[in-house]
Parts: sequence; C-alpha cells; structure tokens
Amino acid sequence: MKTRLFTPGPVMVPEKVLLKMAEPIFHHRTPQYEGLFAEVNGKLKKLFMTEGDVFTLASSGTGAMETAVVNILSRGDKAIAVRGGKFGERWYEICVAYGIETIAIDVEWGTAVTAEQIKKVLDENPGVGAVFTTMSETSTGVLTDMKAIGEMMKDYDAALVTDAVSGLGVHELCPDEWGVDMVVSGSQKTIMLPPGLGFISVSPSAWDKIKKSDLPKYYWDLKKYKKSIDKNQNPFTPPVSLIVGLNASLDIILGEGLENMWARHAKMAAATRAGVEALGMGLFPKDPSNVLTTVCIPDGVDGGALVKALKKNGVFPAGGQAQLKGKIIRIGHIGHLDEYDVLASLSGLERALAEVGYSFTTGASVQAAQAVLAG
Amino acid sequence: MKTRLFTPGPVMVPEKVLLKMAEPIFHHRTPQYEGLFAEVNGKLKKLFMTEGDVFTLASSGTGAMETAVVNILSRGDKAIAVRGGKFGERWYEICVAYGIETIAIDVEWGTAVTAEQIKKVLDENPGVGAVFTTMSETSTGVLTDMKAIGEMMKDYDAALVTDAVSGLGVHELCPDEWGVDMVVSGSQKTIMLPPGLGFISVSPSAWDKIKKSDLPKYYWDLKKYKKSIDKNQNPFTPPVSLIVGLNASLDIILGEGLENMWARHAKMAAATRAGVEALGMGLFPKDPSNVLTTVCIPDGVDGGALVKALKKNGVFPAGGQAQLKGKIIRIGHIGHLDEYDVLASLSGLERALAEVGYSFTTGASVQAAQAVLAG
Repeated sequence: MKTRLFTPGPVMVPEKVLLKMAEPIFHHRTPQYEGLFAEVNGKLKKLFMTEGDVFTLASSGTGAMETAVVNILSRGDKAIAVRGGKFGERWYEICVAYGIETIAIDVEWGTAVTAEQIKKVLDENPGVGAVFTTMSETSTGVLTDMKAIGEMMKDYDAALVTDAVSGLGVHELCPDEWGVDMVVSGSQKTIMLPPGLGFISVSPSAWDKIKKSDLPKYYWDLKKYKKSIDKNQNPFTPPVSLIVGLNASLDIILGEGLENMWARHAKMAAATRAGVEALGMGLFPKDPSNVLTTVCIPDGVDGGALVKALKKNGVFPAGGQAQLKGKIIRIGHIGHLDEYDVLASLSGLERALAEVGYSFTTGASVQAAQAVLAG
Repeated sequence: MKTRLFTPGPVMVPEKVLLKMAEPIFHHRTPQYEGLFAEVNGKLKKLFMTEGDVFTLASSGTGAMETAVVNILSRGDKAIAVRGGKFGERWYEICVAYGIETIAIDVEWGTAVTAEQIKKVLDENPGVGAVFTTMSETSTGVLTDMKAIGEMMKDYDAALVTDAVSGLGVHELCPDEWGVDMVVSGSQKTIMLPPGLGFISVSPSAWDKIKKSDLPKYYWDLKKYKKSIDKNQNPFTPPVSLIVGLNASLDIILGEGLENMWARHAKMAAATRAGVEALGMGLFPKDPSNVLTTVCIPDGVDGGALVKALKKNGVFPAGGQAQLKGKIIRIGHIGHLDEYDVLASLSGLERALAEVGYSFTTGASVQAAQAVLAG
C-alpha cells in the first residue's frame, strides 16, 4: 500500500515540485532570482485575491502569525483573540507574550464565532487595535464566516486579521472586498510545498497602523520586507529552493483555477462526510470547513488504536489535539490529493474500523462517497 | 562552462543531498521524524563541538541571531556589539530594536576585535548582559579570535555570543572549552544546504539567563524549543525536507571529519591567496578567515565590470557590500567545493581580469595555487 498523507498539513507535494526543488541552488542577489520572485509575488496576489502585497517569510505559519501581531499593534493597544481551538489560542498567547491586553472570545470547540459576538466585545472595549481570527481552525475542522465579520468591522477602526494557514485556497476569501487587513498562511497546506515558508498579505489601509507600530521586532519587521519586495527581493536570505518550488506549485494551483479548487475541496469534503455518516459515525464541527473532515470516534472504539490501524492501512490521518485527544480523527483534503483519494481514505477507514471491532456495512462508505463524487 | 558558486553563501549543495530532499514528505509528529531528529541533533552537537543543545529554527541566520538576543538579555541589561562589518552591525541593530542600551565597539573593516578591546569596554560598563561578536565576518573576510575572547570573559558575568553563520566548520570553535555561550549558524554555508534553517547552540550555564529573560518573544522562545527537543520535536512545524537534507549533509561533514574540514578550508584559502598575490593583487583583511578570500580590486579596474566578467566565465563570486561596494571581490571556499575548484576560480579570475584590461602573467595564479595544493 502506498502511504497517503491525509493530515491537514504537512501534505503531499507533487512529484514535479519535489524535482524542481532538487535543481542546483542559485544565488538570490541576482536578476535570475529577482525575475523568479517577481513572478511568484504576482501569482501569490492571485491566490490571496488581493491587490496588496503578499510577503514571504522564512518561517513556519506561527512566525507569520507573530509578524501580524507585532506589526499591526502598538504598545497600549488592546487586542481581541477568538479562541475556538488550538490555533485561536495561539493568537492569544502571541499577543500576551508582547504585553498586549488581550480579550479572549471563547467559543465552544466545534463552533464558529459570529460577527455579532465580535461586535459586542468591540463595543464593550474601546481601544482595540486588531481582532485575530482563524478562518479554518485545523484543530477542530471549523470554518469561520470571514465575510460577515469583515462587513461588520467596516464601521470599526480595529484591523481584522485571519489565520488562513490551512483555509487559503480551499474556501473563498476576498480580503480587499471583505475588509480583511492581514491574511496569514504557510507553505505546507494548500500550497502543497514542504514546510518552511510563511506568508502574510497586507491591505493598503493596514500600512498606517504598521508604520506607527512600536512593538519590538527585527526579523518580522514588515517595513523591511516592503522595502525589499519593491525590488523583488527579501531583506534576509530567502529559502531559495522552496521559492523555486513555490513557483511550480502556484502554477499548478492557478492552472486548476481558484473556483475549481474550492469546488474540488467542497466535493471531497462532502463525499468524505457522506461516507463517514454511512458508517454511522458523527461529525464533530457544527460549522465544518472543507480543509478536513473531523470525525467523532464512536463510543467503545479506542481512538489511539483506530489511528494506528489507519496508518497500518496506508491512510495517515491526524488525531485530536489537546482536549480532543482520543476523541476525534481528522481526515485532510488538502495537498496533492484528488477525488479518488477520498475513496482510498474511506476504504482504509473501513479496514481500520473492522480491525478495532466497530460494526458497519462493508462498502457503505465508498458507495455513499461515490454518489457524491459522481454527482 | 558549468556555473560554480564561489559566494560565501548560499553555496552549492551536494547532488545526493538535493535528491534526498526530493523524497516524498512525511509527517513530523511521528516516530519516523523523531528518530531522524534525534540523529540530526546528535550530529549537530558534534559539528558545534558542544555538550549543550543545538536548536534548529525555521528561519534564516538572522532569525537565529534575534533568537540569541531576545533569550540571553533581559530588560535593563546593557549589551556590547562588535561592529567590524555588515553582520556585526546587525547585532547592534537587533539589540537596539528591543530597546537595549547597546555599546558598539567599532573596529576598522578588515581588522578583528581583540579580547583587550572588549575587556576595556566591559570594565567601563557595568551591567552588560551579553557581548555579541562575529566569528567570521562575511562582509570583510575577517576572522575573530574567539578563544582569546572567551578566555578573557571567564571572569565576567556577561554571556558571550558569536555569529558563526559562515565560520562554523571552517575554523575550530570549542564553545564549551572556550566559554562561548551561544553559537549561531545557518544552513546555507558550510552545512551545504539550501537556506531556510537557522541554528543556535546554548551552553548549560546560559540557561540561567534564558530562564529569567523577560524580552518579548514567542516563535524565538528557546524555552519552547528546549521542552520540544527533549522529545526530539520542534515546537512549530519544522521544514521537514530541509531536516532530511541536513541529516545527509551532516553525514558528509562528519564523514570528512572536522579537523580535515578545517585543514581543507585552510588549504583552499591559502592556495587562493597565493594565486591572487601572484597576479599582483592585494588581500583586504588583515586577519583573514578561511571562509572566503577578499581581494582588493586593483587601481584602474572597474569592480562591477570584473564581477560581471567573472560570472560570464562561470565563476560566481560576491562583490563588496555597503562601504566596500566596488572595492573588493569575495571568493568563497565553503559549500560543495573541493581543492580543484580553487584552480577553476583562479582560471576564471585570470580570464576576467584579461577582459577588463588588467596586466599579469598568464597562468601565474594557478601555478602559485598548485604549489600550495600540492604541498
């Protein structure tokens, strides 16, 4: 059996991208690199659907989150962090690490924050510099309605920032139109690269806040990146091989087209959900994202044993994190996967469930999925 | 002509390392990754010659420098930054960005700071938390005597930090024995990988300062990395493909042996210097490092034209930065280069010099180099 990664990142990387990255390294202070980086930056703007700059950092997604915090806020600002999962909690922790008075909006894991909830907290707390949200919360599989939040926040001075590390390219996100000031992402999700690059898009109006920001920073200082990107350069040595791979990945993504990508992920998620439900299992999130399907582990089934059995059968899922450990499995739909891989994940899930002693009708999941895929 | 990178980083990567990194990605929260990372960490300790931990960051070398600053210092500490080139200046800038009262020791570009100079400033300034130095200053080609500085500083409470981004593996550096508390490096130099990884070694005694450090940080927080490394993990998603490559590169490095590496770099540098001098050209640094040979551009020769002619002839050097722009060329000896490549660099240099109208005896440089290489 081939091992297929169904984790919601890191994901499988297309072979042609892997081989492109294996080409000999070239130097980055050259017209060759600048031509490449100009091309990449143009393609990133298309993927992020923005006229603003999209900056590429040598870091994981968390580094890009920290970049958002230390550039958009100033000393004395308050912040709002929506906590409905592990990555929402990370926003809170980063803000607190910089001495920011941070108001947490705690939403039940599995549900999405609403624009109204955020509006209430904004109204009660003058002086909020930014609201930090998670578009697709990878720890729970929940999708947040960024359009509604962006529209609500048009009447407020606070900036709107979203972690779209996993959500980018899976769900529509129009930062310019919707009023999302910063969108954060990473290379190891829908962009189908190895981990090692963080991304952050910045709306033109966010620059007023960035320019006056006085939180301490050096490597994360977006003013440095802005000065460099205008010359198609990076302020610090870029991970050249990953940038070469990025160009190839973006070609695949834009070749498929964003609307087709959203539709494909929607279909893969719908087929997986139909398959899982045909086995009598429940879905965890009330507001599901198409990045991944989060399945509740049935009563009487040992979650750890199920994950182990899945891996043995060539299907590599993610388990639950923190309070969800042992209670869910997460089946990702991102990366170098196609519709037929959904059938592989469900076939493997059936084999694994049988091994851990769960009762179901053999083939029910793939049949249900096929009805969606063929639709 | 093949293009050979003689820049002092990024460097050429061995083909077998490039191909290793092109293998399918695997997930990092697995025994497979933990086994690999345990192996890598053991090998890094050998390369860094320390019993302390060596932490791997997803960042460029500058990120690892910032990590040193924000972990070793606390609010109210003073810092000393030695400025004898572009990378020494970077230490100063990072410290200042965090509001640290920073005393610069300005040494003439091309010369190395002495232990006595640092001692004088330490004696005049109580409350210094750390001294930031550059072992091999890539912008000038100068080597600093870290052993002498470390021994002098044994009587002081201040920590000693060095940027060995390019110097690591080229010159002997025994942090435990010499009293160097933090050694910073990057993947794209002697480690022969693409850019994208930063490294920082930490001496056991530095942890007292790190634990009480109150400078704001999240991604750079070494306490998080320490907690993770003890489980052979990273706190944030690691660049898996680069870690796979790192393991392969470290095998090559440790297979050659550190003493053999130092000797090879010494020989390559000596042969290059002999070749350059045989052409009647001068060397810039008074205290030269074996990372690179920094050559003064002769009177009447256009520096920009010489660099261009070198590249046309397949020899890719670095020019001068900042105040040295147009005044020097820098020929690196690091990366996937061997002794015969020295002959290629000098042969190309002769061709380029002829093209820009400089007079010399054809073959003089390769003959002089050969005398060293054959010695």
